[in-house]
Amino acid sequence: MSTTVTLAVDCMGGDHGPRVVVPAAMRFLESHPEVFCILVGQREPIERELARYSGVASQRARIHVASEVVAMDESPTLALKHKKDSSMRVAINLVKEGNAHACVSAGNTGALMGTAHFVLHTLPGIDRPALVAVLPNMRGHTYVLDLGASPDCKAENLLQFAVMGSTLVSAVENRERPSVGLLNIGSEEIKGNAVVKQTADLLRASDLNFVGNVEGDAIFTGGTDVIVSDGFVGNIVLKASEGLSRMVRTYLTEEFRRSPLGWIGALFAWPALASFKRRVDHRRYNGAILIGLRGVVIKSHGSADRLAFESALGRAETAVRTDVLGRITARLTPATASQAA
Amino acid sequence: MSTTVTLAVDCMGGDHGPRVVVPAAMRFLESHPEVFCILVGQREPIERELARYSGVASQRARIHVASEVVAMDESPTLALKHKKDSSMRVAINLVKEGNAHACVSAGNTGALMGTAHFVLHTLPGIDRPALVAVLPNMRGHTYVLDLGASPDCKAENLLQFAVMGSTLVSAVENRERPSVGLLNIGSEEIKGNAVVKQTADLLRASDLNFVGNVEGDAIFTGGTDVIVSDGFVGNIVLKASEGLSRMVRTYLTEEFRRSPLGWIGALFAWPALASFKRRVDHRRYNGAILIGLRGVVIKSHGSADRLAFESALGRAETAVRTDVLGRITARLTPATASQAA
Repeated sequence: MSTTVTLAVDCMGGDHGPRVVVPAAMRFLESHPEVFCILVGQREPIERELARYSGVASQRARIHVASEVVAMDESPTLALKHKKDSSMRVAINLVKEGNAHACVSAGNTGALMGTAHFVLHTLPGIDRPALVAVLPNMRGHTYVLDLGASPDCKAENLLQFAVMGSTLVSAVENRERPSVGLLNIGSEEIKGNAVVKQTADLLRASDLNFVGNVEGDAIFTGGTDVIVSDGFVGNIVLKASEGLSRMVRTYLTEEFRRSPLGWIGALFAWPALASFKRRVDHRRYNGAILIGLRGVVIKSHGSADRLAFESALGRAETAVRTDVLGRITARLTPATASQAA
Repeated sequence: MSTTVTLAVDCMGGDHGPRVVVPAAMRFLESHPEVFCILVGQREPIERELARYSGVASQRARIHVASEVVAMDESPTLALKHKKDSSMRVAINLVKEGNAHACVSAGNTGALMGTAHFVLHTLPGIDRPALVAVLPNMRGHTYVLDLGASPDCKAENLLQFAVMGSTLVSAVENRERPSVGLLNIGSEEIKGNAVVKQTADLLRASDLNFVGNVEGDAIFTGGTDVIVSDGFVGNIVLKASEGLSRMVRTYLTEEFRRSPLGWIGALFAWPALASFKRRVDHRRYNGAILIGLRGVVIKSHGSADRLAFESALGRAETAVRTDVLGRITARLTPATASQAA
């Protein structure tokens, strides 16, 4: 691997498009001298944003024109079928052709997953991709997968997710044998549906550091490096957590505004509230990896601001530098072979 | 129905047993003159707590002795098989025999669900029970089911859950046609696994006010009266939300303690923080209904304090007074007949 990491950045995706993505890429380049960004999308709006940057960092960015844009609410199937020159598709193609190490997009999740799967295909030994995110918890953070790439899973798929998650944490956190938990409705072995029980059997027989079933609260109370579930459960849990966080934020703000001492209170409480906000700041955790494909694909939250999108770019760079995909391939190829034997 | 509602209260369940349950029952009786409580459990610890109450309310309580206690971590199967004289079992028997209108327990969830199902059986037209809780959200609250009684569900089960949830909300919230959402990974009809898609078809064909698929965040952003899922997904979402809430509480407390201005800040911010706490106080929402059985069974959180257990008692009384079970039976019997036709 060369020392320069090249990222294909879909500039048209997300709620804000180039207005957020281009400044985020420029900021990221300023602090990461060994990264090169290919800014993919319509020339005019990207150039307008780029015009504000004249430093040396901008010499490590170039525009790659793509004429079409996948809308946030567009049907993933139609986008895949008809928008062959979308910024998203072109960014993924750059990875496929070896012109970029990874691609990052804040675009339509379904379209990104569908297109990436279609263009890049899965790694040897992997049947389905998974979306992994890092979620903050009381003792650090946990990698949770799948968050929605593969809603209908068999036990073999979940085993593969566990291997991918474990390898990812080994690589990017430099951890020897990450602990792996299986998301379930109780810690006892008899709990759960048929697929989950079968998965637990496979995990116990594997060489992973399987710690058994974990319940939903384990995601946030912490203590497990990797938590595995199918994409149906994972996505609903993720969305519910986002909803609950939004409720807490809204309520806190409302109460500080409503109370007579609220403003003074907020002033004195500012350091504590700011520090609290920093700790749970979802922007620092932005950037889910669509793992299991022959190329690194990072999904940023659609509403990401500049800081959040920078986190997603950082996630991409780290995944490339630590060779996550190479490690997964190395690990899964013999594992699958020995299973088949 | 008589104007007096009789509640069978399992005094031995939960983390605190009679120390919390008996005072909660006494407080509840004081504020609810048309309620009678049968305090089920070991005579001595219950009497010790009762001794502190001499008011008229205590005349509406009597002890019903049960010699055994189901431990919080005991196997539900073993409890069901061997502890025929547990406080939990006896409390459920009182409902079965018509000596109490409802039973309330903070005991072992699995044992309570298993025993209640075994003793009471399901209502006509219902194949499986569901655990329903009321969760607070940004626009009020939502009834979510199933939270863990039936982890493996077919579409027919989920349809029955929707009917039960809708009838429950009609009864206790006095609402004409409650909106019903199906928990899924996207609002489009093509989303989700096979069971969910089939359920959506059944719901669309039903006479319920079905508003379509809802994503996980809808639980907390609000706007839907009833949200339906199988017990596997529902339980994991509930536990994850509990974990996230605990994390937020812990972080907020830590930050106020850590910051130099933290204590002063907390002082000035007190009204806002207290009001915030009240709004999200899970104790007010304590008391999940195990619905679909031939008797009202309420599960209190194991860690419930007095206030929380009072909420659970209130939930039981309301369910009895509004004749939730009678309404479900009336609604489901012809519905099932017409479906079979």
